[in-house]
Amino acid sequence: MIQELNNIFNNIIKEKKLEHILKGNFGIEKENIRASKDGFISLKPHPTLLGDKNLHPYITTDFGESQIEMITPPLSSIEETHGFLETIHDIVTENIGDELLWPQSMPPLLPDENKISVAQYGELGKSKVEYREKLAKIYGKERQLISGIHFNFSFADELIQEAFTKLNYEGDISSFKEIAYLRVVRNFLRYRWLIIYLFGSSPVAAPSFKLKSLFSGENEPVSCTNGRSIRTSPRGYRNKEELYTNFCCINQYKTEIEKHIKAGKLMDEKELYYPVRLKFQEGSFNISHIEIRLLDLDPYEKAGISKNTMYFMHLFLLYCLFKEEKGFLDLNEQKTATSNLDLISCDGMINNLHLKTYDGDSILAQEWAIQILGEMKSMFSQLEILENPNYHASLKDIGEIISGQTIQNAPKINEEVTEKGFINLHLDLANKYKEMSLEKSFQFHGFTDLELSTQLLLKESVRRGLKIDILDRKENIIRLSNITQTHYIKQATCTSLDNYSSVLMMENKLVTKNILAENNISVPFGKQYEDESEAKEAFNFWKNSPVVIKPKSTNFGLGITIIKNNTDISLYNKAIKIAFEHDQDILIEKFFPGNEYRFFVINDDVPGILQRVPANVTGNGKNTIAELITEKNKNPIRGKGYKTPLEKIAQGEAEKIFLKTQGLNFESIPKQNETIFLRANSNISTGGDSIDFTDEMHPSYKEIAIKAAKALNVKITGLDMIVTNMHEPANNDNYTIIELNFNPAIHIHCHPFIGKNRKLNVKMLDALGF
Amino acid sequence: MIQELNNIFNNIIKEKKLEHILKGNFGIEKENIRASKDGFISLKPHPTLLGDKNLHPYITTDFGESQIEMITPPLSSIEETHGFLETIHDIVTENIGDELLWPQSMPPLLPDENKISVAQYGELGKSKVEYREKLAKIYGKERQLISGIHFNFSFADELIQEAFTKLNYEGDISSFKEIAYLRVVRNFLRYRWLIIYLFGSSPVAAPSFKLKSLFSGENEPVSCTNGRSIRTSPRGYRNKEELYTNFCCINQYKTEIEKHIKAGKLMDEKELYYPVRLKFQEGSFNISHIEIRLLDLDPYEKAGISKNTMYFMHLFLLYCLFKEEKGFLDLNEQKTATSNLDLISCDGMINNLHLKTYDGDSILAQEWAIQILGEMKSMFSQLEILENPNYHASLKDIGEIISGQTIQNAPKINEEVTEKGFINLHLDLANKYKEMSLEKSFQFHGFTDLELSTQLLLKESVRRGLKIDILDRKENIIRLSNITQTHYIKQATCTSLDNYSSVLMMENKLVTKNILAENNISVPFGKQYEDESEAKEAFNFWKNSPVVIKPKSTNFGLGITIIKNNTDISLYNKAIKIAFEHDQDILIEKFFPGNEYRFFVINDDVPGILQRVPANVTGNGKNTIAELITEKNKNPIRGKGYKTPLEKIAQGEAEKIFLKTQGLNFESIPKQNETIFLRANSNISTGGDSIDFTDEMHPSYKEIAIKAAKALNVKITGLDMIVTNMHEPANNDNYTIIELNFNPAIHIHCHPFIGKNRKLNVKMLDALGF
Repeated sequence: MIQELNNIFNNIIKEKKLEHILKGNFGIEKENIRASKDGFISLKPHPTLLGDKNLHPYITTDFGESQIEMITPPLSSIEETHGFLETIHDIVTENIGDELLWPQSMPPLLPDENKISVAQYGELGKSKVEYREKLAKIYGKERQLISGIHFNFSFADELIQEAFTKLNYEGDISSFKEIAYLRVVRNFLRYRWLIIYLFGSSPVAAPSFKLKSLFSGENEPVSCTNGRSIRTSPRGYRNKEELYTNFCCINQYKTEIEKHIKAGKLMDEKELYYPVRLKFQEGSFNISHIEIRLLDLDPYEKAGISKNTMYFMHLFLLYCLFKEEKGFLDLNEQKTATSNLDLISCDGMINNLHLKTYDGDSILAQEWAIQILGEMKSMFSQLEILENPNYHASLKDIGEIISGQTIQNAPKINEEVTEKGFINLHLDLANKYKEMSLEKSFQFHGFTDLELSTQLLLKESVRRGLKIDILDRKENIIRLSNITQTHYIKQATCTSLDNYSSVLMMENKLVTKNILAENNISVPFGKQYEDESEAKEAFNFWKNSPVVIKPKSTNFGLGITIIKNNTDISLYNKAIKIAFEHDQDILIEKFFPGNEYRFFVINDDVPGILQRVPANVTGNGKNTIAELITEKNKNPIRGKGYKTPLEKIAQGEAEKIFLKTQGLNFESIPKQNETIFLRANSNISTGGDSIDFTDEMHPSYKEIAIKAAKALNVKITGLDMIVTNMHEPANNDNYTIIELNFNPAIHIHCHPFIGKNRKLNVKMLDALGF
Repeated sequence: MIQELNNIFNNIIKEKKLEHILKGNFGIEKENIRASKDGFISLKPHPTLLGDKNLHPYITTDFGESQIEMITPPLSSIEETHGFLETIHDIVTENIGDELLWPQSMPPLLPDENKISVAQYGELGKSKVEYREKLAKIYGKERQLISGIHFNFSFADELIQEAFTKLNYEGDISSFKEIAYLRVVRNFLRYRWLIIYLFGSSPVAAPSFKLKSLFSGENEPVSCTNGRSIRTSPRGYRNKEELYTNFCCINQYKTEIEKHIKAGKLMDEKELYYPVRLKFQEGSFNISHIEIRLLDLDPYEKAGISKNTMYFMHLFLLYCLFKEEKGFLDLNEQKTATSNLDLISCDGMINNLHLKTYDGDSILAQEWAIQILGEMKSMFSQLEILENPNYHASLKDIGEIISGQTIQNAPKINEEVTEKGFINLHLDLANKYKEMSLEKSFQFHGFTDLELSTQLLLKESVRRGLKIDILDRKENIIRLSNITQTHYIKQATCTSLDNYSSVLMMENKLVTKNILAENNISVPFGKQYEDESEAKEAFNFWKNSPVVIKPKSTNFGLGITIIKNNTDISLYNKAIKIAFEHDQDILIEKFFPGNEYRFFVINDDVPGILQRVPANVTGNGKNTIAELITEKNKNPIRGKGYKTPLEKIAQGEAEKIFLKTQGLNFESIPKQNETIFLRANSNISTGGDSIDFTDEMHPSYKEIAIKAAKALNVKITGLDMIVTNMHEPANNDNYTIIELNFNPAIHIHCHPFIGKNRKLNVKMLDALGF
């Protein structure tokens, strides 16, 4: 039977059968202590801006009130999971004022134990608090504050299904699934020392840090001078008594835990601080995923874990699935495995450290590590996994760590602590990460292929603790839900708040204009032409007027000509020809002079008004235009491809020609405060600036925008209005409404070039009733 | 001053200045008596199916309860106006059971006067009833039942504006408008005899018909043997005393009417049975339009008036605008004009009938008519109006009437009455029109360029008396309103009932499938592929299954391949290539066998279920396939270009090839009851049949359709479901939902090839709350 199962998994390797081999679901749970600027644990309560920690699916507290726990949902890629984690980290950072997130598993400076507050959960969470008080008594609050990373993983259903089908396994699919996961667990326990060998990152604690002995009950300083991970060592985050179980099968595993609880050795299954936990679907023996609890916080990573480490963890679990083994763990193996872990945790930095193999031989840790890596490489190249560049790179990096080409975290931390001190080193890192978070606060990491407006909406949703689902990435379709309601949203502003008919009316510019005019709202006087010769014949009608000639459906300003004084028939005819190149129907409208503003209307309110200005630089009398562009492009809100609030200004042919028309080139040096435009068009996509005028605009224009939205019965719209002078009250002659957009971007109002963040993502979720 | 004005209008003719010359607004009011099948006036009340006649803008009653008045709104083209009128006529026909609409101005058989009911208006309309009772006393009910056509006309605002601007008229625009309309009125009165000469259509009445003398009060038989129009004659629909007014100006006109009312000669302005009325915007002296009241019902036209007559009336009014005149009507002119009219009405069919010119000369009526027509031709060719084929044809036809090449209505009616009798002739015509109406009951005449679904919705809106506006013809955007609400609708089923988000979810087939699956509704198992090679590599995954390979966004079945047993990799690869030619992403789905049905869901109800069957004919053992196609195509519900419920079956290359695969050709003779398919695809657009199964479908599938609509939170959808056996209750294995369409057609359910009219236009308006 054992050999049979080994053969089954060997077959996969040999015959490279599984197309879904890399498919799985990943999740991370991470704890960080909130710390003050001088390295003390925060004594402040959990920030209310982070929502109700009783219900919040992503942000809550672990043992201590200042020990924030960040939880990603299960996601189908490591990129997404890591990005989600980083984003939760950013959100927490943005909402804890001047506090820092402590980036090390070993805690910052602590006060007397009685001053440390366990996490509080109000009236509804009394049992949680009691549980924590009990833990405090058994383990001491200091030990409970040691923080770490949990790595959650499950094989994709389609992978299980595919393997089950193709391997002609004779049992049923759920027993096949159980067999697979238990193989992983057993092998993981056997080789778990390697994870600490590679990633142990808590070799040292604050000098003042003491731990209550699980046996004497006395506070003792931590002394693990050659260790790689105090946290995973016998002095660290451990149960008083090790649970040994052979992991032959689920039934037995569950029974043994029950026995420990009945014997009073554990209060609860969750008190079992085992390096790996099997997780089940609620109320069943059906495995949902496994939880690897062995990873320390990586202080050199803002998110506490690198993507590379995640890729390796995935590979390591696949290795554990395929590695031949005997179907259960005997007691000897269990004890050897624990002893190897303890050696690596406590003495892992001793040169020539020897571990004990499961054959009873002694082996140099490094040699064993090289051996395992070799097996992984050969296994994965047969499985064609290493064709994936992420996994390839990950294995390569790990090879360099094992060979000593790259320094491991533990010795590096030791070195830097010696140099700077434990507190200062981690304060420096915490400050650096805080800066990084705030600088790119617009991004939702791992989902940067989504439109920025959608990223911003998702980020605010995470802050509020909404469940989020990306239903179609390309189309930016998401679902947001909480216990009371669900909303489907496309491109951030297409929601159920608006009715379909109103959207269609907005989409049709002529219908929009007619409805507005009927409501006594100013729109440009104009006519539609379906025929080029008919439009040309209308020259006399439009003669001597300032006119705009444009395709009926305008897109990014293409095909539009403005003629300030329509006297030249050849110019007029040319403009008509150009417009017809972009649409079957064109509009000729009377040109209305003034500045064009974007009014964002939502639920009869105008929380954002913006002007878009063509790409430009402002001189200082010293630098060239090229240098000024380079400098302006350094702003992190400028990027490429709509991933950032603004786009970088190009130094291309269009800019060169536009400078030339002004008698300038890239090497010209503008005067102090002189503004040089690099483009005629004001589009953000060509480096234009967005300038917020929400507070400056005379309120009468906001009222008009609201009236226009009401006339079309729309709740959310981006209304484009030309205003002659925004400081003067509106009358029917000093403004005109160009169009209402049914799918307005919100990011331009959240991160304008000049002006405040108008938090339209907040307004959107408020409007949706979340 | 007079010469100056004549010069102004002459300038237009000479310099061809007005581009908007033909622009105007047209409206028709028409009365028809409801009659029984044997030619008696109906004694039944106005049908409740035609709504509340107190409020209905299009369908009400005139003097008598059985005298239906049909009113078009003002529309900007003659085609639309005539079509609207014809459609109202159709709607009335469809809702009066086995009654007929009497097509002659002179009434059908009448009972004793006291049995004729004046129109009843309930509690709210008491004053209307009283007014009618008074009229009955003065004029007699018989006279009030004489029916006719009112032709309403106004110049387009842009025409008035254009003329005002370009002629450098020295007054203000409203006085210019007054001058223009008054010229039209005066000349119209001068030459109005021509209208009766051309179009008079009431030369004879039922032999039993008697009229109460306006003077003796006695009932007298009508004797006007050589007349063209009893209705417009002194015996017809006239006031007791002629009102003479010189029409120099509005003020005077209004004052004189007031005088008549004060003197008790008229109860009200509307009692003035003048051949032309000036109409004003409510409460002002601002002319809205003129009403020409001179036209008899044309019994040879279903709608009571031909388009040609309308085009001529328009030209005649333009002639009246441009024809030189002296700025007022002197009493002599007024009396001459009335006398000419009386002559034509009463004696118009006498050969060599002479009229009196305004110079006092005697002139042969025909000669004068030729003279006027000549002036019109020369005037309109200078104005470039005759380049318009409708106006050109109209003048040509009139020329043929005057020259005697075409017989006029009056002599034709006389001839046919002599042959068949007055009652029988008009019964025959009424029956013919009724058949015509019912045969093409799907059409909204004058708006047949709109999608049929929109036409049907408009038709039902007219029946209910909603105000309708076509906002964008090409895009089928309409507005429906009554006193309490307004709805904007695109393509008949895109309304404010649905929220935008749900529409977007329906539009995305993958999102739809996911949401349905989450709600435990069966959808085809499938996967999306973004990359051709990836899709090809999945061959093993789909091997041996029946599969459908299709572009992600399907359109009319293009790019779809069904492989019943996927074993041939080259066939599979070819299908993938074809699918990718139609979209960037493709879907591969497990093929689900069964029939595909369209479920029309609206407000949690399924009022229509349809199957679409490929183009086919059924044999009779005698005719060839070609003959059977020709026969099947004769059904008026088949047409070309989506203007009818179904399309004609073609005898093209595709049909030829498909027959060949069955060993047949167009000359083959199918057996009795043998069905021969001419196409593989079931699209209606290629001659497919629609078969209603609303009542046959097991109710469990309707419940599933409703559940699916609820899952997506949609109110209106066309849901496509494959069902294995519609008579068996649904379970999760015997149906699958392919897609939900957010813009389903309604016409296919209203006029299926086989099955009932499911009246989805009625359901739509009910759902909208009208």
